[in-house]
Amino acid sequence: MDYPSKVLSKAVEEISGLPGIGRKSALRLALHLLRQPASQGISLGTSIQNLVTDIKYCKECHNFSDSEVCDICNDPKRNDELLCIVEDVRDVMAIENTGKFKGKYLVLGGKISPMEGIGPNQLRIGSIEKKLTSNTIKELIFALSATMEGDTTAYYIYKKFKAQQVKFSSIARGIAVGDELEYADEISLGRSITNRTAYNEAE
Amino acid sequence: MDYPSKVLSKAVEEISGLPGIGRKSALRLALHLLRQPASQGISLGTSIQNLVTDIKYCKECHNFSDSEVCDICNDPKRNDELLCIVEDVRDVMAIENTGKFKGKYLVLGGKISPMEGIGPNQLRIGSIEKKLTSNTIKELIFALSATMEGDTTAYYIYKKFKAQQVKFSSIARGIAVGDELEYADEISLGRSITNRTAYNEAE
Ligand SMILES: [Zn+2]
Ligand SMILES: [Zn+2]
Repeated sequence: MDYPSKVLSKAVEEISGLPGIGRKSALRLALHLLRQPASQGISLGTSIQNLVTDIKYCKECHNFSDSEVCDICNDPKRNDELLCIVEDVRDVMAIENTGKFKGKYLVLGGKISPMEGIGPNQLRIGSIEKKLTSNTIKELIFALSATMEGDTTAYYIYKKFKAQQVKFSSIARGIAVGDELEYADEISLGRSITNRTAYNEAE
Repeated sequence: MDYPSKVLSKAVEEISGLPGIGRKSALRLALHLLRQPASQGISLGTSIQNLVTDIKYCKECHNFSDSEVCDICNDPKRNDELLCIVEDVRDVMAIENTGKFKGKYLVLGGKISPMEGIGPNQLRIGSIEKKLTSNTIKELIFALSATMEGDTTAYYIYKKFKAQQVKFSSIARGIAVGDELEYADEISLGRSITNRTAYNEAE
């Protein structure tokens, strides 16, 4: 497809670089923007640039944050004794959305996956260790995907820290085996957290 | 859904302002951008802003253009005697893509639609008149959607200019009745242009 203008062609190329957006959809989005007041495109462009340049990560939990320490980690009303281990920032948002968890989080940044070449060293296991030495944590809750990789990750962390004075639990498998956590509906996910079970090595 | 960061929340809000992109998809796109080098988001933002601020319209045909007159209107190898009337810039791209048409275009900017309150005055009918007074045009080809609105638009233009020394034709209905032109596959569309028929008032 030839585009009649270089700015259009460039915009289509950039927009279609996003996952799930082909050149035809990208063109449609570009033409939509051209039918709106220019201020809308300018504002969209600015917010995307601000996103990638200004986003910060909480130094405590590695969740996104606007400041050094995020609102959740800073909240004195949240229970410091419960640490919920998740793979991804999306999982924090999903669990927060259920309203069922009032502890704190730690975002691992992925899961152990030999297939994708991701080992424990690429994950923020060291941050768990740091948290555990602070001695406030009584329970470590695995809220990981119900997949082989999720299970492997939980097992690795359990083995590494099982000598510590801490209880291990795992969110209940209310979510179907094989499901990614982020796709779970909030009712199932809320129930899974409420009914979490003691982590069991043989499981 | 609560977002852990204002720049993220703002980006999701702006991205989900695009048609067909819900808040969940917008979040996914934002998180994707955060996993890429920041340069990608900056470049995407810039290209969207350049699109809405720098785009020009050809003063001859009203197609998008990087200069005052577009490459098609400026091309001496293209036949000045054939003027193809289309609704939209997307239709120019679709017809160009077939490689079957070597005349010039005129982009109406829509079609007559009483339902949407669009009358002939909102379309660039005056530009057709200007083109016809230049006396080079021998044939006016309607390449409009095969819908009631497309037919009404063709009929209006035909009636207005039928006294002029110009032949009227319409692209063959190789495309299904009721189809929007832009969704037609390029083979059908190319065939429709090659097999265009004389425009007939009673049709
Ligand atoms: Zn935090
Ligand atoms: Zn032009």
